[in-house]
Amino acid sequence: IDTIEWDAEAAEKGGYDSYMLKEIYEQPQALTNTLIGRLHDETGEVNLDINLDPASFKRISIIACGTAYYAGLVGEYLIEQLARIPVEVDVASEYRYRDPIVSPETLAIVISQSGETIDTLEALREAKKGGARTLGVINAKGSSMTRELDDTLYIHAGPEIGVASTKAYTSMVGAMLMLALWLARARGTLSEEAGKELLHATRELPRLVEEALSEERVSRIREVAERYAHARDYLFLGRGVNAPTAFEGALKLKEISYIHAEGYAAGEMKHGPIALIDANLPVVVVGTESRLLEKTISNVQEVRARAGRVILLLSDGDTENAQHADDVLYVPRSHEMVSPIVNVVTLQLLSYFTATHLGKDVDKPRNLAKSVTVE
Amino acid sequence: IDTIEWDAEAAEKGGYDSYMLKEIYEQPQALTNTLIGRLHDETGEVNLDINLDPASFKRISIIACGTAYYAGLVGEYLIEQLARIPVEVDVASEYRYRDPIVSPETLAIVISQSGETIDTLEALREAKKGGARTLGVINAKGSSMTRELDDTLYIHAGPEIGVASTKAYTSMVGAMLMLALWLARARGTLSEEAGKELLHATRELPRLVEEALSEERVSRIREVAERYAHARDYLFLGRGVNAPTAFEGALKLKEISYIHAEGYAAGEMKHGPIALIDANLPVVVVGTESRLLEKTISNVQEVRARAGRVILLLSDGDTENAQHADDVLYVPRSHEMVSPIVNVVTLQLLSYFTATHLGKDVDKPRNLAKSVTVE
Repeated sequence: IDTIEWDAEAAEKGGYDSYMLKEIYEQPQALTNTLIGRLHDETGEVNLDINLDPASFKRISIIACGTAYYAGLVGEYLIEQLARIPVEVDVASEYRYRDPIVSPETLAIVISQSGETIDTLEALREAKKGGARTLGVINAKGSSMTRELDDTLYIHAGPEIGVASTKAYTSMVGAMLMLALWLARARGTLSEEAGKELLHATRELPRLVEEALSEERVSRIREVAERYAHARDYLFLGRGVNAPTAFEGALKLKEISYIHAEGYAAGEMKHGPIALIDANLPVVVVGTESRLLEKTISNVQEVRARAGRVILLLSDGDTENAQHADDVLYVPRSHEMVSPIVNVVTLQLLSYFTATHLGKDVDKPRNLAKSVTVE
Repeated sequence: IDTIEWDAEAAEKGGYDSYMLKEIYEQPQALTNTLIGRLHDETGEVNLDINLDPASFKRISIIACGTAYYAGLVGEYLIEQLARIPVEVDVASEYRYRDPIVSPETLAIVISQSGETIDTLEALREAKKGGARTLGVINAKGSSMTRELDDTLYIHAGPEIGVASTKAYTSMVGAMLMLALWLARARGTLSEEAGKELLHATRELPRLVEEALSEERVSRIREVAERYAHARDYLFLGRGVNAPTAFEGALKLKEISYIHAEGYAAGEMKHGPIALIDANLPVVVVGTESRLLEKTISNVQEVRARAGRVILLLSDGDTENAQHADDVLYVPRSHEMVSPIVNVVTLQLLSYFTATHLGKDVDKPRNLAKSVTVE
């Protein structure tokens, strides 16, 4: 019977060594499912079939935990940039106890893979008490949250079994991107032309993620991961819309490899974490195409001046900045606003190969539960 | 000549081994200077002599870097709780490049010890471009920021030489507390009675910090610091108004001991960092008197169930919760809203004794500058 069960599991993993790796490779399809039928090429608008008036909100509160919280941070950046509505993001365990400031002009967005995370559910109830309208960005169907929300934007990523979230994260960010476009077009803060450009960039995402998963890139990521696998600590840096990419990269490594990785906005490095830097602390820097790239490269130079070792994510073709890194990981070039989705895939794989090289069980990391339904 | 210089320096240190230790001990006096002449016992109001109308703001943006950023997070909590104005806190290096949403109804508060931090100065200029009214919470006189601000609330902490901020931090938090009271009383969100109670608690701060520095407590902190000094990593947890206390405690340890310490809101632990926990990772938990103490203790139990070692800050007299810790550090009992100022002193000393035990130069930690005037 044991043997049969094992075979069944192997079959469910579709030939991959783990659910996590399978789910990483499922991302192009999961993203396609997130986006499908929602993008209108002719008008540059998105149709999310959301039963709320996008022009009626003066403030947005995004509430989530863990990985979903970082998807929320990307959402904050996108919504503020595109739709010009003030957004704040809170971890649910703090929000629910802080007597939050809420009014009927507040849109509270909760993000949760399962729709069952207890802190997020209780935070949602707090927001409703204050009169907020509520929207969920959720993967699982028929969850406790959905029953209490005004409306739900399903991410349609499919079942996620690996405890460390991968495809749910990229699909959550995809959903936040569409929400930002929806709000922006309805509020007149984004021109039809700019809307079409971003919509085009969004539509490219499944293909770009597929490209990020090419055999050549994956084997290069594996090689780099194994070279640094015995580091005890790791730092992840990024700026702007990719600061949360750095945070999520650090969280992933922490969750499955038990290496103490920490993410920082690159500009904050000088205010503390730079003291940690020496030859034993690899620093992963998201340095893909961006109007802030020059600033980020100057942070890289500070790390190197202190003997730190830099693993640098660069956009394909950026050979000029390669000189600043110990190791370069090239990622497909994408529009800056959608790049967190493309960039994070490389960091997921970096964590994955680090953990497997160290012999860890990536699908069931110690101490962690897939869905945290206790406080 | 060398000898004379050394003597002069020793004299400047007033008998202490380092500027940092001297500045830790100066906190009761620095706080007295921050508060003096600004508290009105009869009315429960504060008089900050600020040339801005406290009732005219619909939103507050707090902008800072490093330690000052954590003072801003305490300020966010206090202002939202007491004055019911939505507050967001941004690291300056992100704010300045994110095309922030600002209007003439926005109050932008910049926090900086020196008033010269370049990212904060540029962020201030961004806020002004959008029409925000601006207020500085600053220590040094005659700074670049002050020349560009609508008004400045000086913290009067006196010169701070140690690179790792101590007395400037507690005085910054003291200033944020007064700002919260000022806004709350002017906006009618805090009754005279509650105002008087908080004002009384504020007035007690210098005495409570003095008590936190008693010889007995300090030698106990030293003993605990030395016991764990060889840990490679540290976790700091707190909730609510003391979540930033945990962040600042971690930053302090990182800055001067080069131990990789990270702070987390205690409720977020289950969403990632719990994977790191084993017998080699000391976890410092701020568990002083609070309506959330029970929740925090349940987080402590989760850490212990995974063989983690817990250093628990408890309020004097809380013998019941002492059973949950490997080591208890008792701190003077204070009103929850003012407790970050009292609690952080113990964490400053924990870092200090860890670093000196490891033979580090606490006044001039590697790679760090006192005032970051380059990007």
